[in-house]
Amino acid sequence: MSDSPYLVKPHSKVNLKKYPTNDTGDFKDKEDAEPATDRHLKRLSVLQEVLYAQAKYSVLIVFQALDAGGKDGAIEHVFSSVNPQGCQVTSFKVPSTEEKSHDYLWRYHMHVPARGMIGIFNRSHYESLLVERVRKFAPEKVWSKRFDQINAFEEMLAAEDVIILKFFLHISKEEQKERMESRLLDATKNWKFNPGDLEDRKFWDDYQEAYEDVLSKCSTKHGPWYVVPSDRKWFRNWVISDAIVRKLEGLDMKFPPPVPGIEKIKVK
Amino acid sequence: MSDSPYLVKPHSKVNLKKYPTNDTGDFKDKEDAEPATDRHLKRLSVLQEVLYAQAKYSVLIVFQALDAGGKDGAIEHVFSSVNPQGCQVTSFKVPSTEEKSHDYLWRYHMHVPARGMIGIFNRSHYESLLVERVRKFAPEKVWSKRFDQINAFEEMLAAEDVIILKFFLHISKEEQKERMESRLLDATKNWKFNPGDLEDRKFWDDYQEAYEDVLSKCSTKHGPWYVVPSDRKWFRNWVISDAIVRKLEGLDMKFPPPVPGIEKIKVK
Repeated sequence: MSDSPYLVKPHSKVNLKKYPTNDTGDFKDKEDAEPATDRHLKRLSVLQEVLYAQAKYSVLIVFQALDAGGKDGAIEHVFSSVNPQGCQVTSFKVPSTEEKSHDYLWRYHMHVPARGMIGIFNRSHYESLLVERVRKFAPEKVWSKRFDQINAFEEMLAAEDVIILKFFLHISKEEQKERMESRLLDATKNWKFNPGDLEDRKFWDDYQEAYEDVLSKCSTKHGPWYVVPSDRKWFRNWVISDAIVRKLEGLDMKFPPPVPGIEKIKVK
Repeated sequence: MSDSPYLVKPHSKVNLKKYPTNDTGDFKDKEDAEPATDRHLKRLSVLQEVLYAQAKYSVLIVFQALDAGGKDGAIEHVFSSVNPQGCQVTSFKVPSTEEKSHDYLWRYHMHVPARGMIGIFNRSHYESLLVERVRKFAPEKVWSKRFDQINAFEEMLAAEDVIILKFFLHISKEEQKERMESRLLDATKNWKFNPGDLEDRKFWDDYQEAYEDVLSKCSTKHGPWYVVPSDRKWFRNWVISDAIVRKLEGLDMKFPPPVPGIEKIKVK
């Protein structure tokens, strides 16, 4: 099966200005896309059962975005049909004192999914090349080494049958503004509003540049990045589900063979 | 809101023979029950969002059953509508060498859900009073102390705002036989068949007795047990979802207040 058109080809140089945030592919509107997304979600649910039963591969799905980019919504929507027993979401927040006292990959490694499992990272080890770079928590001579370190880490995981997909949810600066304003106005969304996000918004251009470097240097054969046009949530969900289904369909997954002599076993 | 009728009242003496496994409550059949279950699942999804946003309570849901009792199916079904980001399932298998070198509660404690989260235990710390007792992995003078130890552990958790619900999925010996046989015959279910389960089936009466002690001694105000009639999967799902919704409706959950001065904040 062919790759998603939103995949970043290895060694390409990404200029995010050339990636539209409001693309809707071949779909006219939400009603037009939803049946296609629903078919993907149903298929994903079937594929997950075999993934779990076979317990050969694990699937690591990384979500990165600027604030209000839609990570939470994408996770809620795209994984709504998967069996929660086979799916583990880890939301990485500000590191604890213990986590800070380790190397930067330590806490992420601990949450890499086990064989048979889908593991979802809401934020990820890439924060070490994004917020840490932009807000100068790490000096350049430290973070500049991390592209290669992360590529090596992911290559090791891939060699151990971890299937990696990384999604950058790409929204416009105007869309971010609208979403932040709706968090301010809607009493059931107020809790999602974090005043610190306004501060980060001032660094918009720096974040775009940091993302461009990540996407250019860390989209690899074993750990591809996808730039997901995310102004339209329904299209975002389609792109993500489409990429995951394509990837899983391409694996040689099957139910494991029964124990030898199963045909002779009697339940008394 | 009143308690589920399937709750084991604290200090009652449970005789499992008096608990029908094929009860279907007020429902005629599957078609009759499904709309009621679906309403519970929708409600659970709404309640979970507030639980997550408020991040005051966490919810620990324990599933125990004999082999083929339906733990996996119940988890898949009842939690199909919850946001995977707010829900973590832990399936406890044979302990690792490291886990064995700790006290028996250590590995379970590590997976108690954080505030705002629903944590589901597929098997639990109660195995220390079930398989370890029945199969004599622990001597009586060791396991006999664990009822009080577990009650104390759960009381501490409850005092820290962990809401605990424990479900025993109660099936008949005949129903277990049928389910095991279908695992032998259906190629997509073969992988669920574990020859060790046949061995455990020989200890059916010992397990019933061990469960009766657990249910009699460890159903407490802060950590109630429910005996779920589970021969009919659709009724099992209704009982579980009903008990969870009743419990969560009884909490004073609300969205957290907005940050002070939110009305003056402008997004630039």
